[in-house]
Amino acid sequence: MPQDNIAHKARVLIDCQDAKGLVYQVSKVFYDRGLNIDNNREFVDKEKNKFFMRTVISGDFSIDEIKEALQQVLPSDATIRIIEPKSKKIILMATKESHCLGDILIRWASNELEANIEAVISNHNDLKDLTDRFGIPFIHIGTENLSRSEHEEKVINTLDTFEFDYIVLAKYMRILSSDFVDCYPRQIINIHHSFLPAFIGANPYKQAHTRGVKIIGATAHYVTSDLDEGPIISQDVISVNHRFEWRDMQKAGRDVEKIVLARALSLVLNDRVFVHGNKTVIF
Amino acid sequence: MPQDNIAHKARVLIDCQDAKGLVYQVSKVFYDRGLNIDNNREFVDKEKNKFFMRTVISGDFSIDEIKEALQQVLPSDATIRIIEPKSKKIILMATKESHCLGDILIRWASNELEANIEAVISNHNDLKDLTDRFGIPFIHIGTENLSRSEHEEKVINTLDTFEFDYIVLAKYMRILSSDFVDCYPRQIINIHHSFLPAFIGANPYKQAHTRGVKIIGATAHYVTSDLDEGPIISQDVISVNHRFEWRDMQKAGRDVEKIVLARALSLVLNDRVFVHGNKTVIF
Amino acid sequence: MPQDNIAHKARVLIDCQDAKGLVYQVSKVFYDRGLNIDNNREFVDKEKNKFFMRTVISGDFSIDEIKEALQQVLPSDATIRIIEPKSKKIILMATKESHCLGDILIRWASNELEANIEAVISNHNDLKDLTDRFGIPFIHIGTENLSRSEHEEKVINTLDTFEFDYIVLAKYMRILSSDFVDCYPRQIINIHHSFLPAFIGANPYKQAHTRGVKIIGATAHYVTSDLDEGPIISQDVISVNHRFEWRDMQKAGRDVEKIVLARALSLVLNDRVFVHGNKTVIF
Amino acid sequence: MPQDNIAHKARVLIDCQDAKGLVYQVSKVFYDRGLNIDNNREFVDKEKNKFFMRTVISGDFSIDEIKEALQQVLPSDATIRIIEPKSKKIILMATKESHCLGDILIRWASNELEANIEAVISNHNDLKDLTDRFGIPFIHIGTENLSRSEHEEKVINTLDTFEFDYIVLAKYMRILSSDFVDCYPRQIINIHHSFLPAFIGANPYKQAHTRGVKIIGATAHYVTSDLDEGPIISQDVISVNHRFEWRDMQKAGRDVEKIVLARALSLVLNDRVFVHGNKTVIF
Repeated sequence: MPQDNIAHKARVLIDCQDAKGLVYQVSKVFYDRGLNIDNNREFVDKEKNKFFMRTVISGDFSIDEIKEALQQVLPSDATIRIIEPKSKKIILMATKESHCLGDILIRWASNELEANIEAVISNHNDLKDLTDRFGIPFIHIGTENLSRSEHEEKVINTLDTFEFDYIVLAKYMRILSSDFVDCYPRQIINIHHSFLPAFIGANPYKQAHTRGVKIIGATAHYVTSDLDEGPIISQDVISVNHRFEWRDMQKAGRDVEKIVLARALSLVLNDRVFVHGNKTVIF
Repeated sequence: MPQDNIAHKARVLIDCQDAKGLVYQVSKVFYDRGLNIDNNREFVDKEKNKFFMRTVISGDFSIDEIKEALQQVLPSDATIRIIEPKSKKIILMATKESHCLGDILIRWASNELEANIEAVISNHNDLKDLTDRFGIPFIHIGTENLSRSEHEEKVINTLDTFEFDYIVLAKYMRILSSDFVDCYPRQIINIHHSFLPAFIGANPYKQAHTRGVKIIGATAHYVTSDLDEGPIISQDVISVNHRFEWRDMQKAGRDVEKIVLARALSLVLNDRVFVHGNKTVIF
Repeated sequence: MPQDNIAHKARVLIDCQDAKGLVYQVSKVFYDRGLNIDNNREFVDKEKNKFFMRTVISGDFSIDEIKEALQQVLPSDATIRIIEPKSKKIILMATKESHCLGDILIRWASNELEANIEAVISNHNDLKDLTDRFGIPFIHIGTENLSRSEHEEKVINTLDTFEFDYIVLAKYMRILSSDFVDCYPRQIINIHHSFLPAFIGANPYKQAHTRGVKIIGATAHYVTSDLDEGPIISQDVISVNHRFEWRDMQKAGRDVEKIVLARALSLVLNDRVFVHGNKTVIF
Repeated sequence: MPQDNIAHKARVLIDCQDAKGLVYQVSKVFYDRGLNIDNNREFVDKEKNKFFMRTVISGDFSIDEIKEALQQVLPSDATIRIIEPKSKKIILMATKESHCLGDILIRWASNELEANIEAVISNHNDLKDLTDRFGIPFIHIGTENLSRSEHEEKVINTLDTFEFDYIVLAKYMRILSSDFVDCYPRQIINIHHSFLPAFIGANPYKQAHTRGVKIIGATAHYVTSDLDEGPIISQDVISVNHRFEWRDMQKAGRDVEKIVLARALSLVLNDRVFVHGNKTVIF
């Protein structure tokens, strides 16, 4: 086994049809190779009869060899991902609001983000100054005189010039077509406000205010094309009352949004999230 | 002023069009009569230009005389309620689930409910045993062979035999027609589960499970006829995760439901809730 | 293997020194016997190098045989518990406040408590009426003219007349000596108020009020003799503000207390809690 | 009344011994001058018999004249502050951790902080780069070869070169002497972690981890000299579990800390906080 193929630590993510003996079979593969299990979590979705397992292994091993060994003992439908823990690459997309972008930039500047920010892409210029403060490329792709598909094509062309793992919509306020979304399956993470009850249409904070809600929240989720709202990664709420004008609700909501997005991003960057159907399993 | 008309403590609730000098005018009425203000809260809804005030006064006074004095200084559209703090009377309506009913019964038995429970009315018999333990009349009004309106008429006829301030729907799982609701304006309080996002239709907990929500909640609200959901009084949530089967979600949801209903009930029984339009102002 | 020794479902709880291959070894025992793993969770406390595993198995098996097989593959310090899921037996101890006792009684009466309540023991008579409503034995053991040890001896003598798995202190407001506590290791569960910051001494709600805390909480924990406060099972909080008088804080606190105790009790009754040192691992 | 003395909007903050007719007397002053009341809140601390009132007035008025008029109708112990709503000036003090400083900088850069940041003072150099990104003066005052009082004198001398309303300790990890604190009464705001139970001494997150707490929180408070911890302005918590290593707890705690500090700062900058004794009244 040539030296350059040897890994020392990896996250093994398995999902497949549930079957008897899966934990035994998988742990045998690791045991037979003398590997340490630093962390191990499993879950069976009984409704769907689906098995999920995330194991952090350490030792000296070849990722290819482990993958092959696992394939031999797991059901044929198994998805096996073996990922070495290293900093991911992300592209941020934003529009005008700075709270989510700023929060991610501060974490990045403080080495607390487990990713490098390759670029910030925006349909407006408002966030250029803030992005510039951190020396990160800010790319403005205006929408003037462009159809949705023309604009998206320009965004895709720009994205094509980068290597990245995830696109983070940090308050990107333009709807993405399914054509766009389909290019980046399970790679786009979005944050949006959430209310009890939900509101559809323009200025949901104004609607929530008119409705007198006592709680406002935020949901971070994967973006999918066939659904209004993809698999949920993280949610949180805060209390409000009748004294909150809609702008106060919006202000309060922003604090929840940025924390929920950061939490979701950390889970995704640590390869802790499985998606199945329209839901997530998070270890 | 005959002795039997003298009150010593009252909650004064005013709502009217906002105007300059309202706090001055109202406080002058109390000041001129040498009354103590034990508690005073105001709020102006600037969107609707509406003024709300709740003052707890003490001293020796005639409620009628105070009301007349206030009417003279307030705008003609003013609603003035002067309420002596005494135990209210409530009717509970429930179906099969015991968590909300049980919670209210325990509070009642411990003298912590600021109300007397006149009766429990149910479309099923499941909760009879629990109600009997507390010596409270349990009235079963079955729905067999009855149309909705026939059943509701029977319920109304039963309600007519009681004096009560509020009807509390403690998991009453049958939809009430607007004819019914209109008989008891701002007198019916309901509790229901809430999710981010919301789910409509049968077994919302199953839907929430399928959707993989990370938060489930409960909303207590007034029941109104012209809206799916009336003015919100209280809301709260708890976190769940992929390990929760839908029955676990339901179980967790029940704990939130009973606490949120109890909180709303306490606010209502203490005359702390104003309703305007489809929202509440709560002091 | 005689029919009456065959189990069909069990919770297997293992804790031991961490070592390579534990998951493999344990899962092999189940795999070799053709058993289903309905649920499996592990955790390694790296600070203490300690391994925890909780597996729910189903199939046809002998508990003794499984235990022996596990002992052979696990480190010699391993604690192995194999528990068939059946209703536990609990004794409640309370003093004057009804909120925790009442909440547990309602759950019991609704078949939502995974335990039978054998008796309620109290140093006061206040809760007799409430307990009687549920037909559960209420045993009053007064403290008059008794030293602490004499009183505790009487309690122990009473406890001796029952079979039980856990003692639940549902607001039992008398300090238990270590002699008492040592008789029931990891069998006593307590609920108490918690504040940020903490308050020691008489009427902590008054102290919290004077201090102007904005959050009050509750902690459910095992009672141990050598520590002020044993391993924490569950905690939660609610927000308060300057308008809360200390009795309002107490009232709000009660709602948290009863929910936190119920949550802790459910975890304990489902054999989901490991204790190690002064902390818990909860699956 | 000369034009330059005329104010158009102000926050009037009154606190004094409670007495009959205070609301009437104060509202009469505003009414007689034809002023609008945009917002009005009062509170009586019955324990201390103390009255608090915060009124936002608008119209054309002289602050001095209003103050004089209020002094004539209020008890002699009354504190009356009339503050025109304008951006305050703050000095940030920090040490090495960037989360609170970064959060405030982003809000400032986005015009969401109701204050201007005059300077960042630090006993270390770690946060210079981050501060520089925002073009705000970073002043390093090292502690080498300096006694506590010598160091504090240098800090005071530096502070003397600025005009400011508040000093915000954004994770300033050096204890301030009472001599220092006494120079800036009710002007210093601090954020610190909070736990249930509380931990004293080095690395509280490690202690909280060892203790197995299920909740960690943060408290923002005024710094006072005679108490370990001054009047609490804001508190919040998040849930953690046994899977959190102490660094994970710290990371989770940071998100709470920055939000709680920002919330407290917003309340203070909007003149919404009264301090009395060791507690706050917040409107």
